[in-house]
Amino acid sequence: MKFRRSERLVDMTNYLLEHPQQLVSLSFFSERYGSAKSSISEDLAIIKETFEKRGIGTLKTVPGASGGVKFTVKVSDGEARPIINELCGLIADPDRLLPGGYLYMTDILGDPAIVQKAGRLLASAFTEEKIDLVMTVATKGIPLAYAVASHLNVPVVIVRRDNKVTEGSTVSINYVSGSTGRIQTMVLSKRSMDQGANVLIVDDFMKAGGTVNGMISMLNEFNANLAGIAVLVEAEKIEERLVDDYLSLVKLSDVDVKEKQIQVNEGNYFLHKQEELV
Amino acid sequence: MKFRRSERLVDMTNYLLEHPQQLVSLSFFSERYGSAKSSISEDLAIIKETFEKRGIGTLKTVPGASGGVKFTVKVSDGEARPIINELCGLIADPDRLLPGGYLYMTDILGDPAIVQKAGRLLASAFTEEKIDLVMTVATKGIPLAYAVASHLNVPVVIVRRDNKVTEGSTVSINYVSGSTGRIQTMVLSKRSMDQGANVLIVDDFMKAGGTVNGMISMLNEFNANLAGIAVLVEAEKIEERLVDDYLSLVKLSDVDVKEKQIQVNEGNYFLHKQEELV
Repeated sequence: MKFRRSERLVDMTNYLLEHPQQLVSLSFFSERYGSAKSSISEDLAIIKETFEKRGIGTLKTVPGASGGVKFTVKVSDGEARPIINELCGLIADPDRLLPGGYLYMTDILGDPAIVQKAGRLLASAFTEEKIDLVMTVATKGIPLAYAVASHLNVPVVIVRRDNKVTEGSTVSINYVSGSTGRIQTMVLSKRSMDQGANVLIVDDFMKAGGTVNGMISMLNEFNANLAGIAVLVEAEKIEERLVDDYLSLVKLSDVDVKEKQIQVNEGNYFLHKQEELV
Repeated sequence: MKFRRSERLVDMTNYLLEHPQQLVSLSFFSERYGSAKSSISEDLAIIKETFEKRGIGTLKTVPGASGGVKFTVKVSDGEARPIINELCGLIADPDRLLPGGYLYMTDILGDPAIVQKAGRLLASAFTEEKIDLVMTVATKGIPLAYAVASHLNVPVVIVRRDNKVTEGSTVSINYVSGSTGRIQTMVLSKRSMDQGANVLIVDDFMKAGGTVNGMISMLNEFNANLAGIAVLVEAEKIEERLVDDYLSLVKLSDVDVKEKQIQVNEGNYFLHKQEELV
C-alpha cells in the first residue's frame, strides 16, 4: 500500500507526537509507507519547519546508519508567557481562599488541558538534561508529574505518605515539614528505582521545600541523582527555603485572608532559562 | 502569512489531537492559515481519511453556521487486541507476585506510554456517552483517570481517603470494602462536582467492587449520575460482585502464590462493545 505525501504528513505528525524523545529511524517510516527514504526526508523537513514555526517542538536529526529523527517538545518564550499568565490569573481568583490562607487548587490540577500545558512547559526546560524518571509525592502532584514525564518519555515514581501492601517491600524515611516543623514519613517501593537513576522531582506546590527535601533524602537512600526540581507554584514569603535550585511557573507573593486578596507573579521560569544560557 | 497545504496538514493534525471532543469551526482554521474554507475542507477530508485508516480516531463534521469539525478518539478492534494482549502479558509476569497474592502493578501504572494506550482504549468506549467528568480514588488510579479524561476533554475529580485542609469543605461517606468487609471512609471536596453531572468512574483494579460502590454512593450525595465504570484490571474469582455494569481491559483469573503463577485473560472490553451494538 502506497501513501501519498499528505497522508504521510498526517500520520507521521501523530506518530512523532506520540513518541517524544525517541529516535525513530528513516527506515521505519520508509517501510511504514512504502516510500523512498528521500521522500521521508522531505516529509520530515516539512514537519520540522512547521513544528518550529508553530511552537510545537523540534525534530533532531541523528545521522548515520543507526540514526534517525527525534521529536523534542520545545516551548518558545512567546508561547510560554500566555500560559504562565493564564495560570497566574486562575490562581489569583479570591474564591480560592480557604481558612488558614490555604488555596483551593484542585480544579486547576483536575483539568487535563491546563495540566498538559503546564507539564509541557516544565518538560521543555529539561529536554537537554539526562532524566531517567520523574518523582512526585501523592496526591496532588501526580497529574502534573505524568504530564511532564509523558513529554520526556520516562516513567513516574510516586512517593506515598502511607505503606500499602500492593507496593511490596518499601524504603521509609522521616523528614521535617518546612512550614509546620513536624516530623513526617514517606515511603517508596524498593522496586521503583534503580541505583544511579537521574531523577526530576515534580510537585504542584512548594512552600519551604520540606517535602521536596524529603524526596531528595529518598533519592539518597536509593543512590539516585537529583537532576532537577520543577513546581507549578512556589510560595514566596518563606523565612528559610530548604531548597535552592528549582524551576517554578507561578509565584504566590502574598495572601491576604482579611482583604480576600491573592497576589500572584510569574515564577522563575524565564530567569532559570537565562541562567542556563550563561 | 500564507501556509502551504503540507504545513496546514501538520499543524491541523497537532491542533485536532490536542483538542479532542471539541468543535472547531472552519473559520478558525481559515483565519489561522489565511486560507479559503474550501481548502480547509479538503485538508480535513485528508486528515479524516488518514485518521480512520491508521486507527487514530475520526473527525465528525457538524454542518451549518455554528458547525465545524470534532476529533474523536476511536480505536478499532484490530488495534485494541494487541494493546490488551500487551497488558495481559505484562500483568502475568510472576515477578509481580507479592505476599498475600497481591500484584505489584506500580511500574505499569507509572509508565506514561502504557497508561496513555490503556486510557485511549477506555475513553474510546465512552465517546458516544454524555460524560461531564471522570472520577477516581487516590492514588493508583489517578494516572489512568487523567489519560481517559484527556481524550474525553473533561476534568478529573479525585476522591481521597483522608481529609486535607487544601480541599476546603468536604463531603465524607463510609463504605464497606468488598473484599475485607471493613468500613472505610472517602471524602470529596464540595466544590469538585456540580449537581446532575454525568460521571465516568475509572480505577486501576476492581476486586469485589467495594471502592467503586463507595464512589457511586458519593455520586448520590452530590446528586450526580453514573455514566459508566471503566477499570484496567478486574479480579475474577469473586463470590459476590457489588457492581454489575463495568468495562475492563484485563481479567485476573487466578493467582497461585505457591506455584508462582498468574493467570490472566482479556477483560470484557469486546463483549461490552458487542452489547452496546445490540
